[in-house]
Amino acid sequence: MRASVLRDGRMILRDDVAEPVPGPGQVLVEVKACGICGTDLHFAKHGAQMVRLTKEISGMPIEGGLPVDLSDDVFMGHEFSAEVVEAGPDTDAPTPGTLVTSLPVLLSPKGFDPIVSSNTVIGGYAERMLLSAPLLLTIPNGLDPRRASLTEPMAVGVHAVNKSSIQPGEVALVIGSGPIGLAIIAALRLRGVESIVAADYSPKRRGLAATMGAHQTLDPALGSPFDEVKPSVVFEAVGVPGIINDVMRRAPMGTRVIVAGVCMEDDTVLPLFGIAKEISLQFVNAYDVAEFAESLRAIAEGEIDVSPLITGEVGLDGVGAAFDDLANPDEHCKILVTP
Amino acid sequence: MRASVLRDGRMILRDDVAEPVPGPGQVLVEVKACGICGTDLHFAKHGAQMVRLTKEISGMPIEGGLPVDLSDDVFMGHEFSAEVVEAGPDTDAPTPGTLVTSLPVLLSPKGFDPIVSSNTVIGGYAERMLLSAPLLLTIPNGLDPRRASLTEPMAVGVHAVNKSSIQPGEVALVIGSGPIGLAIIAALRLRGVESIVAADYSPKRRGLAATMGAHQTLDPALGSPFDEVKPSVVFEAVGVPGIINDVMRRAPMGTRVIVAGVCMEDDTVLPLFGIAKEISLQFVNAYDVAEFAESLRAIAEGEIDVSPLITGEVGLDGVGAAFDDLANPDEHCKILVTP
Repeated sequence: MRASVLRDGRMILRDDVAEPVPGPGQVLVEVKACGICGTDLHFAKHGAQMVRLTKEISGMPIEGGLPVDLSDDVFMGHEFSAEVVEAGPDTDAPTPGTLVTSLPVLLSPKGFDPIVSSNTVIGGYAERMLLSAPLLLTIPNGLDPRRASLTEPMAVGVHAVNKSSIQPGEVALVIGSGPIGLAIIAALRLRGVESIVAADYSPKRRGLAATMGAHQTLDPALGSPFDEVKPSVVFEAVGVPGIINDVMRRAPMGTRVIVAGVCMEDDTVLPLFGIAKEISLQFVNAYDVAEFAESLRAIAEGEIDVSPLITGEVGLDGVGAAFDDLANPDEHCKILVTP
Repeated sequence: MRASVLRDGRMILRDDVAEPVPGPGQVLVEVKACGICGTDLHFAKHGAQMVRLTKEISGMPIEGGLPVDLSDDVFMGHEFSAEVVEAGPDTDAPTPGTLVTSLPVLLSPKGFDPIVSSNTVIGGYAERMLLSAPLLLTIPNGLDPRRASLTEPMAVGVHAVNKSSIQPGEVALVIGSGPIGLAIIAALRLRGVESIVAADYSPKRRGLAATMGAHQTLDPALGSPFDEVKPSVVFEAVGVPGIINDVMRRAPMGTRVIVAGVCMEDDTVLPLFGIAKEISLQFVNAYDVAEFAESLRAIAEGEIDVSPLITGEVGLDGVGAAFDDLANPDEHCKILVTP
């Protein structure tokens, strides 16, 4: 079958990938849509660094970091919707033809593998892939599977907002209006937060921020957002060095900072800034099963309209070019791969 | 009167300091004991840096940083106990002779001044000083004023533990057993935490950690504490660059890190470490009125025995030498100045 794979830093189309065969508890699905995530872009560019850095981390459920061999092809694509084709042996699964989505995790008798970047576990940039029957969520309400594929990135926003414990009357400042920042804005709106301020250098993204629910948008080129707004909670959704320290320096006393931007470079902070004002930094990652389901529900019931975020659609042969196009924040937000 | 003041980076004894005169709401007290704090040591060595850095912080109750002129003498000493001498005009205060302590803040009709480092507000390294009548706490139970002077540093521990929301069944790792780490250990014990692990390179300080309530002590020279213990809450009480990143790299998933060590240098962290494990960093500073009072109560009722922490006592003429002596962690913990 066909799949777009990472080889030597580029996404290339293969037509000779072995057809995946579902084992017990697994389901073969046909991919309907898969969003391109910033993590994939970063992995394509800095895969060796990511593999090396994740090896350095201890205390994780799986020790040893990302077990990815970059000299071999890498499958990616973790924001997918799909149609059930067939279940593995002795497996309860929805009937063939059912539209589903799932947490990007593949269970097997040996344990579990994240469906993120792998030499063996096929992701959503392919015609077909395997999912785990116990993790399948049926797409309800006749929701377009294109929109359902945004369940995953929107769940990231739901989780970040849950971790903040923000109350509706508190002021939220969201720094960065890329896909993660926009998902956070949507989740803040969903939670009823009455003052959502978004900051981004890109006019296009400030426009999207307003569309997704920001009450006010700011251009950091014109001055620090903290000159305009005194937030209780700051969501950092940029992930470049320097932002955390700037937030600690300028934020009001007691600010809760949710760090959702994934900075994979060394960053310099002055702890004194945090201490003087009792800042807290809560680093966040992913979501749980309930948050994933809540994201799908909110999209399906129209409480989050994800359609403005979808700025492009390509086939498997267009993934490489789409990776390049996504470098320009004024052009694109989310490009879907529809195999 | 006599006072030890910071001049050109050294503590020197003056005998010509003008007698302080209490204004309305203020009380003249005679200092009985004043502990030497690491903040004072740091200010003596790096005062210019501290003044400069605090100016860079915005969002504070008092903008503009520490208003200290280092070319003039600086009064310090914020861990004090004292005896009431006389109240200012129209001021309700305990009768002369009453032993008291207080949050190190001087209220005046113009606002408030921290009693920490100031060209004008006299601290505890002096024969007499001014305190604020509404903030006075009477020292109960015939408690020795030497021990009562540790109310302030112990309150720092009470506050750090409160901010952690640690539960008795959770494992606490305290990194660094200087005065702040030891105060945290005492406060953890006070809260009923059943597994308190202390790490410090100094055998003397590991001994003090055990005395103050640590159930286990570790020497980081023999291996990372995280190889031995999987804490839910880590208290960082060292405050040197590199510690926060090491904690983020090695701590278990979801660890709450309370940053109580005051690092005033740039520090390098890799945010990815925090993100991968959803670490939180809560920077903490000082205490509130209730925590200060709780600290005094616990000391007075014998629930915290501070006497092992007091490793030296000097007069006003010995402050300079004591500052030097405190550089050696195997020799001293807390030196009291008893004017």
